Amino acid sequence: MISFTCDYIEGAHPLILQRLMETNLDQEPGYGEDRFCASAKARIREAIGCPGADVFFLVGGTQTNATVIDAVLRPGEGVLAAATGHIAVHEAGAVETAGHKVLPLAQQEGKFSAQSLAVWLESFYADASWEHMVAPGMVYLSFPTEYGTLYSKAELMTIKAVCVKYGLPLFLDGARLGYGLASPSCDLGLKDLAQICDVFYIGGTKVGALCGEAVVFPAGNAPKGFLTTIKRHGALLAKGRLLGVQFDALFTDNLYMQLAKNAIDRALELKELFISKSIPFYLDSPTNQQFPILTAGQIQALQGSVNFEVWEKLPDDRYVTRFATSWATTPEKVAALGQLLDF
Amino acid sequence: MISFTCDYIEGAHPLILQRLMETNLDQEPGYGEDRFCASAKARIREAIGCPGADVFFLVGGTQTNATVIDAVLRPGEGVLAAATGHIAVHEAGAVETAGHKVLPLAQQEGKFSAQSLAVWLESFYADASWEHMVAPGMVYLSFPTEYGTLYSKAELMTIKAVCVKYGLPLFLDGARLGYGLASPSCDLGLKDLAQICDVFYIGGTKVGALCGEAVVFPAGNAPKGFLTTIKRHGALLAKGRLLGVQFDALFTDNLYMQLAKNAIDRALELKELFISKSIPFYLDSPTNQQFPILTAGQIQALQGSVNFEVWEKLPDDRYVTRFATSWATTPEKVAALGQLLDF
Amino acid sequence: MISFTCDYIEGAHPLILQRLMETNLDQEPGYGEDRFCASAKARIREAIGCPGADVFFLVGGTQTNATVIDAVLRPGEGVLAAATGHIAVHEAGAVETAGHKVLPLAQQEGKFSAQSLAVWLESFYADASWEHMVAPGMVYLSFPTEYGTLYSKAELMTIKAVCVKYGLPLFLDGARLGYGLASPSCDLGLKDLAQICDVFYIGGTKVGALCGEAVVFPAGNAPKGFLTTIKRHGALLAKGRLLGVQFDALFTDNLYMQLAKNAIDRALELKELFISKSIPFYLDSPTNQQFPILTAGQIQALQGSVNFEVWEKLPDDRYVTRFATSWATTPEKVAALGQLLDF
Amino acid sequence: MISFTCDYIEGAHPLILQRLMETNLDQEPGYGEDRFCASAKARIREAIGCPGADVFFLVGGTQTNATVIDAVLRPGEGVLAAATGHIAVHEAGAVETAGHKVLPLAQQEGKFSAQSLAVWLESFYADASWEHMVAPGMVYLSFPTEYGTLYSKAELMTIKAVCVKYGLPLFLDGARLGYGLASPSCDLGLKDLAQICDVFYIGGTKVGALCGEAVVFPAGNAPKGFLTTIKRHGALLAKGRLLGVQFDALFTDNLYMQLAKNAIDRALELKELFISKSIPFYLDSPTNQQFPILTAGQIQALQGSVNFEVWEKLPDDRYVTRFATSWATTPEKVAALGQLLDF
Repeated sequence: MISFTCDYIEGAHPLILQRLMETNLDQEPGYGEDRFCASAKARIREAIGCPGADVFFLVGGTQTNATVIDAVLRPGEGVLAAATGHIAVHEAGAVETAGHKVLPLAQQEGKFSAQSLAVWLESFYADASWEHMVAPGMVYLSFPTEYGTLYSKAELMTIKAVCVKYGLPLFLDGARLGYGLASPSCDLGLKDLAQICDVFYIGGTKVGALCGEAVVFPAGNAPKGFLTTIKRHGALLAKGRLLGVQFDALFTDNLYMQLAKNAIDRALELKELFISKSIPFYLDSPTNQQFPILTAGQIQALQGSVNFEVWEKLPDDRYVTRFATSWATTPEKVAALGQLLDF
Repeated sequence: MISFTCDYIEGAHPLILQRLMETNLDQEPGYGEDRFCASAKARIREAIGCPGADVFFLVGGTQTNATVIDAVLRPGEGVLAAATGHIAVHEAGAVETAGHKVLPLAQQEGKFSAQSLAVWLESFYADASWEHMVAPGMVYLSFPTEYGTLYSKAELMTIKAVCVKYGLPLFLDGARLGYGLASPSCDLGLKDLAQICDVFYIGGTKVGALCGEAVVFPAGNAPKGFLTTIKRHGALLAKGRLLGVQFDALFTDNLYMQLAKNAIDRALELKELFISKSIPFYLDSPTNQQFPILTAGQIQALQGSVNFEVWEKLPDDRYVTRFATSWATTPEKVAALGQLLDF
Repeated sequence: MISFTCDYIEGAHPLILQRLMETNLDQEPGYGEDRFCASAKARIREAIGCPGADVFFLVGGTQTNATVIDAVLRPGEGVLAAATGHIAVHEAGAVETAGHKVLPLAQQEGKFSAQSLAVWLESFYADASWEHMVAPGMVYLSFPTEYGTLYSKAELMTIKAVCVKYGLPLFLDGARLGYGLASPSCDLGLKDLAQICDVFYIGGTKVGALCGEAVVFPAGNAPKGFLTTIKRHGALLAKGRLLGVQFDALFTDNLYMQLAKNAIDRALELKELFISKSIPFYLDSPTNQQFPILTAGQIQALQGSVNFEVWEKLPDDRYVTRFATSWATTPEKVAALGQLLDF
Repeated sequence: MISFTCDYIEGAHPLILQRLMETNLDQEPGYGEDRFCASAKARIREAIGCPGADVFFLVGGTQTNATVIDAVLRPGEGVLAAATGHIAVHEAGAVETAGHKVLPLAQQEGKFSAQSLAVWLESFYADASWEHMVAPGMVYLSFPTEYGTLYSKAELMTIKAVCVKYGLPLFLDGARLGYGLASPSCDLGLKDLAQICDVFYIGGTKVGALCGEAVVFPAGNAPKGFLTTIKRHGALLAKGRLLGVQFDALFTDNLYMQLAKNAIDRALELKELFISKSIPFYLDSPTNQQFPILTAGQIQALQGSVNFEVWEKLPDDRYVTRFATSWATTPEKVAALGQLLDF
């Protein structure tokens, strides 16, 4: 049985485990005060080109989103996000638990446009009763999106311009950041993101770590008391070293981008396989998640040999499926899938 | 430099790391649906003698407390805890974030008595305006307490009787549970706790794991939708296997209790050292945290050679200090400390 | 200048003020323990045919919605409502402040159908990741809706059947309840609502009172500690008599329905006026809010002589406007409007 | 039967009711946009000597405290208050509902001292783990306190100096403000309070109004979006005129202070009565709440003829009772009580 279910079905990249072994008995203070965290922060600051950036390590994505949003928003403000955004759909109300509403934006293939954002904001403030409504306090986007799609540099800069006009910080959810940056379709890098975003995070969990997300406030603009906010959200790991060691390894010798590149290379091979079998896609994803449209018969034929997710039934009774690659996907596994596609 | 700062200054027990290595590339589903979690849950159910128990794995202690309390309380209810309880002092308001008040109980050496609990409850409901006050909805205690002290089986059963009288679930915070159970002063075991508590957790982070706490509802009495509550609190690890593998190892061949026993053995040796030097203690702790009272001169003499925490200045200008042992503390280190105590 | 801006531009019906005068110096206990509240509750119980109903008086609509929803939902659950529902749009995030998400349903003219509700629920539980999403915990609808439309008895009963199937309590927001019940298009009465709803409220503010909403749990099914929940939401009036006296008057000699009938009679006259001038409506409202479509020129011609709200610009550059009548609208004012419509 | 139970057992002062009658059918916009609110705000700005003050009208005290505190604090911050403060005890967790902890200060007769505040803050920031604790974000005090006591001008200024040192806004809960200011023991006035406090409110409910509290940000320093915060807390009255008319009347021809003075005059007469009978007091209150200590026999003798509150049983089996006067208490009623004190 081979699996393309998601990008977190394996443990960590071996180099990371090795570093955990090597440093295991070093005695270090807790709560991120250890030297591994310090080293990892220094490497990240260098990678993003912001020597004054504030960097924090949290454990998982939902937690990170809830913590950042709670810290940045004023009480009662809402966060604008694509209607398909992770915080809008799949975080079980974590944002609402801290008292904030997710304000959904029209989206296409997981992305909202600067124009749809601008239209929303204009309409909002044109409404005579806007003071009776939840005011937007920040803008959230995921990169890549939940559908594997990417914003171009130009798109992000136009979105940012709208944010600046309305005084809204821009927050980029990079749970799969590496898989976006390593895509041949991506026209920007970490340093660009650090210039454009007010806060973003570099996802570790899905790109080779056991767990961990690195939150970055590029301009050293972390809200007052952010460490306490992390603690309050239950996101301050006692053995912060676990996160420090992992990000230190990920940002040594470009490992993070190498792992990401493997996933993208495999995803493009996988994409070619489906194309070669004339199997259509739900949308054209340039990243590690691919969404072929399969018939019930094709799905049945594959089940038992390969794991993948079935996302949605289309009106014509075919199904949108998801095949995800990761840092751990081997060419052999993709090739094995190829054998199975001879329906 | 040797360190007794706390019980989370090292990584994980080597057997745990080894299991992480061995299972690293196994492909398993996320969010705790993996076979390691299943195995770990089975072992825990057996260890506590409750085949029908609900078991969940979360990442850290503050997170676990906030999640359990939020899930068990009705909206607006409060949680009764010793005024020194971790949730009352050192969790940055995590309980309040979910809208609940911590109702402090009079305490002695970190413990509250069944009587003080009963008096509080009687006074509360005798107050004519009790409906204008925060009603208690559950009782929280830590075992061992933040001062290393332990409740006896009789004490816990009397507390439980008061809880039953008032319809309040009893929640035991076992962040250091092993270090309580392994103490020669402890007159109860996991199976007793499972009979007495409505919900408790078995701390992994401080007893040999990299991270992880196992929440147990012994009677299969997890609140409806508890998994969603975990997700909503940002406490559902994508790679749940990280927790499953660790607890599976900890509950194989009695590893958890062996690690705990090492910490206790070392703590008792350390205690003897101070006694032999006629250094007094702030209180008589039977667990892995010891609280010798040192003079400023003694503290100065030790600094540079040994790390420990200074907790509090006494009226006579001496200091309460904390020396903690753990699963990783070696007899050699304790002996080395002994050399340093020749002031 | 005449005004049809909304249904709360005047104070209270004179009979209510008179009762406030007459009882002003009677000494009564606070917080709703007074004899006026007791009398008003008895009258409401009789009017709805539920001698065992729990009745509470709160001050305003947003407050009432937030309090009821917070009391009924379990932590983290969401409330299903038409996307145009008051709680979804115009309550500034009051529901989210207590940690709950508003789950929007497709709507038409302010109403959602039993079918759209059923489809939503089926899709939700069919989604493999539903445990990562906000689970619905109750259903909210407004009667009349924000667009003045009404559910028929059959529609409500079908909606209730879906609620029962999924174990969801049904909550009816009756901020303008009288204006619904008094409409000739309405085929149900208070006693029917009390049979169908798990909780509803009878709006006072917009139907002749200075302020006040009567929350009814028809089956005596108020959640445990509901009085404390009211207090916690800042909704427990110290001088509860202010609410008791008003509802006592409103439910004496059928005053509530008489006031409502006046608003409806005036609204139908007003509707006829527009029809007679061949002015179209945005939708066919049978209640006290009417939505004529006016051109910019017509709006300009009216301004200065009559107040009304402009809601929305249509693609063809005409505008949806709102004219509201109330218990206080006189036939003379409607007639005066008629004079102005000769564009 | 005469009653001294509390200061909200009657309706409103007749002049207020009269103004409600006179203005009843004036058509005015909702939500505080009416001309009565505008006039009342102007009069309050003049009375406090702050032409640029932001003034808002809310309905009740608990609601006002919760709204102001939520608006001023950053997420997760706590509010410092005397352990006996209304927000700490009798508001059912309203502050916690918005996610904030009440941090209790040592108090005496309902007051905390600048010194106890300074000690608390020094200890807090001296604690090595303060970032794991709830950080204080503002200071709350009630004037008069829940025990009828008053801070002197010097005391308030010293408290304010500590607040300034730590960057904490000072919030004064004036639910009974008039009864403080009208006391012969009070050495400050509204203009002093406006200079000292960052935000305070002028209580209407207990000083002659049916309901209503006027929140004042003297320096025009209302937090951004405060109107939305009011709405979100369910505290924005649709018929805001009800509050505007009342405060307009209260601040016309010094009515507010006249009503307050009546209560104080009656309270001092009542105090003399008890003194003349050699009945001791729990504490020496200079305001409208008096706390005589009665025996069980005395209480029994009075019951049936006079209503008052029994607050607390003393170790010697006597009871602390509370007798409250108000704007509505007549000299005749106090004299009648005198007759009853001949035990």
